Amino acid sequence: MSRIDGRTAEQLRPVTIDRGWSKHAEGSVLISFGDTKVFCTASVTEGVPRWRKGTGEGWVTGEYSMLPRATNTRGDRESVRGKIGGRTHEISRLIGRSLRAVIDYKALGENTIVLDCDVLQADGGTRTAAITGAYVALADAVAWAQGKKLVKAGRKPLTGTVAAVSVGIVDGVPLLDLCYEEDVRADTDMNVVCTGDGRFVEVQGTAEAEPFDRKELNALLDLASGGCADLAEIQRKALEGTL
Amino acid sequence: MSRIDGRTAEQLRPVTIDRGWSKHAEGSVLISFGDTKVFCTASVTEGVPRWRKGTGEGWVTGEYSMLPRATNTRGDRESVRGKIGGRTHEISRLIGRSLRAVIDYKALGENTIVLDCDVLQADGGTRTAAITGAYVALADAVAWAQGKKLVKAGRKPLTGTVAAVSVGIVDGVPLLDLCYEEDVRADTDMNVVCTGDGRFVEVQGTAEAEPFDRKELNALLDLASGGCADLAEIQRKALEGTL
Amino acid sequence: MSRIDGRTAEQLRPVTIDRGWSKHAEGSVLISFGDTKVFCTASVTEGVPRWRKGTGEGWVTGEYSMLPRATNTRGDRESVRGKIGGRTHEISRLIGRSLRAVIDYKALGENTIVLDCDVLQADGGTRTAAITGAYVALADAVAWAQGKKLVKAGRKPLTGTVAAVSVGIVDGVPLLDLCYEEDVRADTDMNVVCTGDGRFVEVQGTAEAEPFDRKELNALLDLASGGCADLAEIQRKALEGTL
Amino acid sequence: MSRIDGRTAEQLRPVTIDRGWSKHAEGSVLISFGDTKVFCTASVTEGVPRWRKGTGEGWVTGEYSMLPRATNTRGDRESVRGKIGGRTHEISRLIGRSLRAVIDYKALGENTIVLDCDVLQADGGTRTAAITGAYVALADAVAWAQGKKLVKAGRKPLTGTVAAVSVGIVDGVPLLDLCYEEDVRADTDMNVVCTGDGRFVEVQGTAEAEPFDRKELNALLDLASGGCADLAEIQRKALEGTL
Amino acid sequence: MSRIDGRTAEQLRPVTIDRGWSKHAEGSVLISFGDTKVFCTASVTEGVPRWRKGTGEGWVTGEYSMLPRATNTRGDRESVRGKIGGRTHEISRLIGRSLRAVIDYKALGENTIVLDCDVLQADGGTRTAAITGAYVALADAVAWAQGKKLVKAGRKPLTGTVAAVSVGIVDGVPLLDLCYEEDVRADTDMNVVCTGDGRFVEVQGTAEAEPFDRKELNALLDLASGGCADLAEIQRKALEGTL
Amino acid sequence: MSRIDGRTAEQLRPVTIDRGWSKHAEGSVLISFGDTKVFCTASVTEGVPRWRKGTGEGWVTGEYSMLPRATNTRGDRESVRGKIGGRTHEISRLIGRSLRAVIDYKALGENTIVLDCDVLQADGGTRTAAITGAYVALADAVAWAQGKKLVKAGRKPLTGTVAAVSVGIVDGVPLLDLCYEEDVRADTDMNVVCTGDGRFVEVQGTAEAEPFDRKELNALLDLASGGCADLAEIQRKALEGTL
Repeated sequence: MSRIDGRTAEQLRPVTIDRGWSKHAEGSVLISFGDTKVFCTASVTEGVPRWRKGTGEGWVTGEYSMLPRATNTRGDRESVRGKIGGRTHEISRLIGRSLRAVIDYKALGENTIVLDCDVLQADGGTRTAAITGAYVALADAVAWAQGKKLVKAGRKPLTGTVAAVSVGIVDGVPLLDLCYEEDVRADTDMNVVCTGDGRFVEVQGTAEAEPFDRKELNALLDLASGGCADLAEIQRKALEGTL
Repeated sequence: MSRIDGRTAEQLRPVTIDRGWSKHAEGSVLISFGDTKVFCTASVTEGVPRWRKGTGEGWVTGEYSMLPRATNTRGDRESVRGKIGGRTHEISRLIGRSLRAVIDYKALGENTIVLDCDVLQADGGTRTAAITGAYVALADAVAWAQGKKLVKAGRKPLTGTVAAVSVGIVDGVPLLDLCYEEDVRADTDMNVVCTGDGRFVEVQGTAEAEPFDRKELNALLDLASGGCADLAEIQRKALEGTL
Repeated sequence: MSRIDGRTAEQLRPVTIDRGWSKHAEGSVLISFGDTKVFCTASVTEGVPRWRKGTGEGWVTGEYSMLPRATNTRGDRESVRGKIGGRTHEISRLIGRSLRAVIDYKALGENTIVLDCDVLQADGGTRTAAITGAYVALADAVAWAQGKKLVKAGRKPLTGTVAAVSVGIVDGVPLLDLCYEEDVRADTDMNVVCTGDGRFVEVQGTAEAEPFDRKELNALLDLASGGCADLAEIQRKALEGTL
Repeated sequence: MSRIDGRTAEQLRPVTIDRGWSKHAEGSVLISFGDTKVFCTASVTEGVPRWRKGTGEGWVTGEYSMLPRATNTRGDRESVRGKIGGRTHEISRLIGRSLRAVIDYKALGENTIVLDCDVLQADGGTRTAAITGAYVALADAVAWAQGKKLVKAGRKPLTGTVAAVSVGIVDGVPLLDLCYEEDVRADTDMNVVCTGDGRFVEVQGTAEAEPFDRKELNALLDLASGGCADLAEIQRKALEGTL
Repeated sequence: MSRIDGRTAEQLRPVTIDRGWSKHAEGSVLISFGDTKVFCTASVTEGVPRWRKGTGEGWVTGEYSMLPRATNTRGDRESVRGKIGGRTHEISRLIGRSLRAVIDYKALGENTIVLDCDVLQADGGTRTAAITGAYVALADAVAWAQGKKLVKAGRKPLTGTVAAVSVGIVDGVPLLDLCYEEDVRADTDMNVVCTGDGRFVEVQGTAEAEPFDRKELNALLDLASGGCADLAEIQRKALEGTL
Repeated sequence: MSRIDGRTAEQLRPVTIDRGWSKHAEGSVLISFGDTKVFCTASVTEGVPRWRKGTGEGWVTGEYSMLPRATNTRGDRESVRGKIGGRTHEISRLIGRSLRAVIDYKALGENTIVLDCDVLQADGGTRTAAITGAYVALADAVAWAQGKKLVKAGRKPLTGTVAAVSVGIVDGVPLLDLCYEEDVRADTDMNVVCTGDGRFVEVQGTAEAEPFDRKELNALLDLASGGCADLAEIQRKALEGTL
């Protein structure tokens, strides 16, 4: 059986990472997973939120948003509605947690980095593309902060790399990196965030229809681990400039 | 090694489920997991939200909230702040999804059940206590709807049972059903929602400090499966009136 | 003529006051007036709002809220609607004013006590139950603050006791402590807050249907004074531990 | 003893009522109680709120607001803050209830009248001036609706007249119609709404400092009844055009 | 051809400016342009917003609002809706910019003046009446600040005068100072803010129907310049007390 | 004298228009004016807002927003702040009015087109780039609607073309299409929206420092007319596919 777009079950969509897409941000990336396109910026500011002042430790946080016409039908802007939806909150929090997993707060010092992930076009997997792209923007921002001496010489705020991918069971078959059409048909949907050394930062699996058993869970985790390893390699090349 | 409260690693806190705590709600439960106390009500209304009208299918949703002094220091009310926090949104969505996993929408017919889970006292595991209690309130509400003939004779809107528990790795040891003091010290925190037949509805694991590897993940899933099986038994007794 | 629940016109519903219902709050009470159940907590924090800093005086304030299914039909949460309704505001303000009537700000010193009154089940008279219960929680919180030396030795922040009751004219007969069914049929509805020595803190009478004359007003005030005296006695016993 | 502005204890401030202040509204009045100036408009629309449709009954409601510089120091606009304060809510509700006390909903038919009371200049007693002025605007609006045949021939939507006044105890002396300087020094503050035949619609007394006893309450009610009778006479003359 | 109200094309409506309408505000004016009536207050406070502190410079800002029944049909209050509409924002910003054009921030020193313009009755040209009246209130407030020595002796915070008028093309004819009926029929609508020496502070022209050419634009600018000159003269007389 | 980036006074920055940037939207364009980059989408939906139903006429509206890191320092998201700023409202309204100037509502029929203009990178002139790009997206969307027969055969909803440019006086010299550095130094700033045949849709001139006289205004209008003509030619080429 082959997939809608001809991929094998364990194959990522074409992934591109364009660094330096913004002249203003300290780190910025346009990442695409197939037709999903997310613009990630990393903004560095000296100082930390009030509750963290005087600790000598930094802070990293994320905000996720969709442009109104990122999807097939136009959605209302959350700024117009005056409140942020539950899904947006949930993904923003996930992005923040995922990136903080590879940050040494002490080494970062009292600096704050905000990762803004704005979805320009959605075709499934927007949160995983956002995390994967945000890591590269974060790495560029950290390097910028080191160059500007905001980070003390010799300190390494980044303790590793992080990437994310979705997996799901469609028509009984576990698949990697679902596009929108696969996502809506999936019985189980899982988002997995891994570090570059293959450990887990987040595992979020949801039964959309039928509950899933331990065997299915294991198959999905295997697929996701492989996909994250592939993404870590792509991130490495992007940062080397050899992508 | 023994735990703060003398439990073994795979032991739940004392769980109590008091049904019929409200004279108004169609189903209502005061559930406690140790010092965590959650008041769960199930409200049945005829009809469904606009986007579901005419489908012949019902709807189930959840809302979670903490009383301001449920915790050690008083928190601002979300109604006073004028917006709902990300954590509240996230847990409300989780409760809704978890309960919908055991609902046959067709059998429910065009009725809506809202599960309100208000935390009266928090000591870790509020979302898992909420889901476990909400299931019992839901079962009572469904029985009420059947009695009132809102549900067609012979139809069974409930397709199974659902319960939830937290697990985590504290000082390198996987533990079941973390209390607050364990929760803040945990490296990894996972919430698992299972059906009564042992399958997974939700698996949400987060590395709070160090990322976790596959072996740790497996140990946590084993613990959680056992805990959910124990909770399913407690739910069964509560509904039988033999708790 | 006897009432729905067999009481005489000048009789309170059964009143219970359970102290120490929360392990977190400095004072906490579950109070019931018949089927009306309100959970009152008193939270003490050092310091006062900005506009009161440096005065040497403390502050006491209240917040009232109904759980969504406290009533016969589920109401929307104010946090979800994003704004607090007029009724909630009005009752919160009433609770704060009523309790401040028995506080010596100087003796309290620069400490703040917040009284949260959350209605778990409503059957008429929620605001009067809230005030009556909040007084007991406040007394426990003041004692706690004295024990912790937040209040200077020898100072008595509480200058008296306070309780509240509703009265109304139903089918031409003045009645004490209306339950919901009586309340909706009342021509005139009055809430009266009294100190333990029988003086008035608040008198709020509203003609729901026909305006009322001075004679009716006097009959209602007589009833309310008697009811508040009974409640003061119940509060005293609860605080002595002899209730 | 004479008052700040030379009045006797039982004397109203000079009251003026200018009808027809707006060319758009169906009823409009600029009322002044001394330096307190309130602009009251009554807007008639055919139809009623959704919850009242099909009942054949009308609806009357009120909204109160202060211009930002109505007071001695400028206040933030509630529209800018994005939420309505508790005091505004409370007074808006009071205005609505007070005017509804003299409305026969059936006679009004399915029409809605909104009373907007905007305080242009505040010097104590803004809510009582608002109610007193709103009655006159309401009477004009009802006459307009009768003229336009929105109200059936022969039906009288107005069942009486309504006016309001504040009273308070200042330095131990009960005074009628407090100006701002008296209001801030009052131990007890009471707002009383009466119909033209001398019955009570609302009695709201609050102990600002010391609780008040029954004798003081009686003295305040006597004063208020007299003041409302004077206001009823002034309203009558304004509507006759002989003020 | 003559206009609805008999004016010639280049004639203003009757303009009245009543100073000292509020006893609280440092400057206050009730201005009317025909049936358009705007209440303008200028509130002086020592100090400036945070972002301007320590600069030695003052600040001037404006807020515009309509009473709900200022227009022919009642509009919802923005405080009730919980958000400020785009039109209100836009006009508030315009008022602030227009008045700041004649302010020497250094001479004003670290004082803030807020101009509140509340429309009591609308009949076209509310924003231009607001600016014209706000200037007079501002002049009175500046004089007050000079009298109170908030402004250093010899400093002149006002560098000139400012007034505003609307112009438009109705049925092909350029007209000055449109009333509501003309405004709704206008093809092009322009608001022009001029200083007393005839220079432009703001020019805002909008094609409501057909785009306009350079010749039409020139005709409108000629008309507006004349109107603003007439208004400057009226302002001068109002401030002299000879209006 | 030459400009920061070497342009002459009457020269536009390099303008690029990439059509078809989104696979979801009916029309979509990434437009750049130098370093200013705006993503414009046109979304077509059948039907019109409630107030326009049954008229047979369509509707066109616009929404403008800045990504948080579009500028040199990160701004808070309006969705997070919970309210839309005045500047955003003002520009959204301007975009809507500008595009409606070239729409024949009758020919469009009861269809709605929403133009979303999201600024990805800001370097001055974001609103004029937004309008210029939105026109191209609108033209593509109209063509799509014609292809789908949403628009009746033979009807031409577009009555012309529209483009916009900023002009300003910097150091006494009138300049076309200001970049950010020029914009902050400008004495006068003007945004001009023209149709392809050289007429004006909007003229918005603001004195940022000194008021401007008629001669300066004329010089700015000349420059703007030339710039809009150049932009109309670029739009034409983009739509022909020859850009």
